[in-house]
Amino acid sequence: MLGTYDVFGANDLAAIRNGAQVPVNDPVQLAAIMAAATENVGFGITAGTAFEHPMPFARRLSTLDHLTKGRVGWNIVTGYLPSAARNLGQDDQLEHDQRYDHADEYLEVIYKLLEGSWEDDAVVRDRERGVFTEPEKVHHIGHHGTHFKVPGIHLSEPSLQRTPLLFQAGASPRGIQFAARHAEAIFIASPTNAVAKQSVHAIRRALVEAGRSPDAAKIYLLLTVITDETDALAEAKHRDYLQYVSPEGALTFLSGWMGVDLSKYELDEPLGNVESNAIQSTVAAFQADNPEGRAWTVRDMVEWNGIAGLGATIVGSGSTIADQMQRIVAETGVDGFNLAYAVTPGTFEDVVEFVVPELQRRGVYHTEYAPGTLRNKLFGAGDRLPANHRGSLYRVGGPLSTIDDSIREAAFTFA
Amino acid sequence: MLGTYDVFGANDLAAIRNGAQVPVNDPVQLAAIMAAATENVGFGITAGTAFEHPMPFARRLSTLDHLTKGRVGWNIVTGYLPSAARNLGQDDQLEHDQRYDHADEYLEVIYKLLEGSWEDDAVVRDRERGVFTEPEKVHHIGHHGTHFKVPGIHLSEPSLQRTPLLFQAGASPRGIQFAARHAEAIFIASPTNAVAKQSVHAIRRALVEAGRSPDAAKIYLLLTVITDETDALAEAKHRDYLQYVSPEGALTFLSGWMGVDLSKYELDEPLGNVESNAIQSTVAAFQADNPEGRAWTVRDMVEWNGIAGLGATIVGSGSTIADQMQRIVAETGVDGFNLAYAVTPGTFEDVVEFVVPELQRRGVYHTEYAPGTLRNKLFGAGDRLPANHRGSLYRVGGPLSTIDDSIREAAFTFA
Repeated sequence: MLGTYDVFGANDLAAIRNGAQVPVNDPVQLAAIMAAATENVGFGITAGTAFEHPMPFARRLSTLDHLTKGRVGWNIVTGYLPSAARNLGQDDQLEHDQRYDHADEYLEVIYKLLEGSWEDDAVVRDRERGVFTEPEKVHHIGHHGTHFKVPGIHLSEPSLQRTPLLFQAGASPRGIQFAARHAEAIFIASPTNAVAKQSVHAIRRALVEAGRSPDAAKIYLLLTVITDETDALAEAKHRDYLQYVSPEGALTFLSGWMGVDLSKYELDEPLGNVESNAIQSTVAAFQADNPEGRAWTVRDMVEWNGIAGLGATIVGSGSTIADQMQRIVAETGVDGFNLAYAVTPGTFEDVVEFVVPELQRRGVYHTEYAPGTLRNKLFGAGDRLPANHRGSLYRVGGPLSTIDDSIREAAFTFA
Repeated sequence: MLGTYDVFGANDLAAIRNGAQVPVNDPVQLAAIMAAATENVGFGITAGTAFEHPMPFARRLSTLDHLTKGRVGWNIVTGYLPSAARNLGQDDQLEHDQRYDHADEYLEVIYKLLEGSWEDDAVVRDRERGVFTEPEKVHHIGHHGTHFKVPGIHLSEPSLQRTPLLFQAGASPRGIQFAARHAEAIFIASPTNAVAKQSVHAIRRALVEAGRSPDAAKIYLLLTVITDETDALAEAKHRDYLQYVSPEGALTFLSGWMGVDLSKYELDEPLGNVESNAIQSTVAAFQADNPEGRAWTVRDMVEWNGIAGLGATIVGSGSTIADQMQRIVAETGVDGFNLAYAVTPGTFEDVVEFVVPELQRRGVYHTEYAPGTLRNKLFGAGDRLPANHRGSLYRVGGPLSTIDDSIREAAFTFA
């Protein structure tokens, strides 16, 4: 994100005061140094398709995949902060569906550079002949599209994964279509299990419509876990955390995500009074899940969001958490969880200490790391994009390749 | 550089074959991990003003300055490879002087973001009040220029140096003007001491014309040092290295730098026959320095360039090298050297082993590192840009500040 959240109060004061994703540094550099200190962790970098030209971005991805030995993922976002678009000289960001059209072409350029420019055996490092790379095996991608013209070669030597593992979190119909076309791992956030189940179903269907297997992408549900040795201790920890929730900070994020300025409402206002389709559909989902429950207020939304973002929070001992996780998987069909944190690294340390051993005892969690790249750790089918993934079709000789080395032929006739 | 050298032979085959700056990775990430393993080394990142919007680039610089604890420098280049411009969707790069006008505005945006957006005491991390940053002390830069519109705030917390140490290597009249306005360290490359002396004089004069002290920027001369325990061993090492020079690789670089396709000439062709003003002025400089010498051929240019790029090579024991370095400094007025390498890390290890102790014995080289940031190590006057540097004038309250927080006032009346 290259802007600030500025829907709440119609300015960025609350975002800055609460440290709501500002200040924020370049995640690529952080991943590079964290990779140097770890062996098996994968790193998912969130980067927008509206902020950097795909030519230099492709080089950043290759560099990071080299430095991490193939442990990099890219969480593709199209951007949703109008302030970011304005900081790049635009009057506003592209309209929602257009952003995805633009992102589709962005991915096309990335695939051509990462998959289609350098053949596997191009780099020979032949000291005898003084040849570093066989130039005939490095191709000009010849991309001439609507948004980008990129005639040249990719600049980095191919890395282990070439294309990093692709994450996406599109939730709208066009967003799900985009995710189903490109993603290998999809994040979802749902107020209830029933909504999560619907999302999983919509994604599996979209994957099939995109010509892929319904399980070609892993689906991860956003979840916050508050755990400790016993249920009572975990509940006390949860109560302790709740006192630190910043209503202004929570409402800053919610206002940005939902597109409605919540500074105009009192904390005790019933959510039914808030003019926002996004909020009304969330409220409806909660009520469907719990028809006897009291009507939610803005304050309830703050407490829910203050700990867990837009996902669920579960609280309890390792055994209680494991029960709930297994139930969520059974009821929704998700492949796993995208764990949010209440405190860092404490929330993650707690999960490692109390929950992972219990899941391992139950035989539903791995006990050692799969070898190699992030893609191979997740799918166990090698380092590269699978043959039926769209990105593979841009490889040299593939049906979508546009390589065009004619600039060299012209040169030969000249020489 | 986001393109390939393609003047030699009118294509990029030779560049790719010889590994002439291709493949090449993102230097920012490499600096981040090298910083994690070192304490005193400074890192100069070469990055062009034509390739990334200044808004995300400023965040990259802040991030790297945080990660290096203030040891980052930025070598500002405006770009000179037409192939790079084409890869970014342009028909060609901007004309030479226009590139510097564009770069001047790019620097203006960078100064506004790094120097003028966050006040020093903006970040308070106040747990009691729940305030991370005092938002009234973070300003919208309000930049509305010819090439860029950037209304918003900088995204990173200020780093130790804020603006990284600024390097530049402009050699044309407009390039020297640009360097004199912005740079704190200037690289020059000269075929002879007489030409270097002229360059130093032109730069000192340009610094004064830019309203700065004539020694406000350090001037570093490109130099390759081949050294060993004795002169004889160093000369043998030099002869050994020469056999590995790739004529095609050297000519690929020379053709790109000089703008002339040297594939059209035989290696034994006298340089006088080559149609290139840049080459003729270089040849004239050598002849002025050595009027008795034989006429140079393309092959001589290859051997000169193959080891030393466009600078000089000196060969000998530590004592011989120290003599020559001291003579160069006395004859040219440079502040130091930009050491190139014949092999890496061997060339640098040799300098550390054989030359540095000799220079220390003579009292002309430091024996311990100055503390703190790269800027403080070089100038000993603190971490930040000095008050009379152009970048300082963009600070809050400074004469060139354009901060405009009116978007917040509008919001207040609305609330």
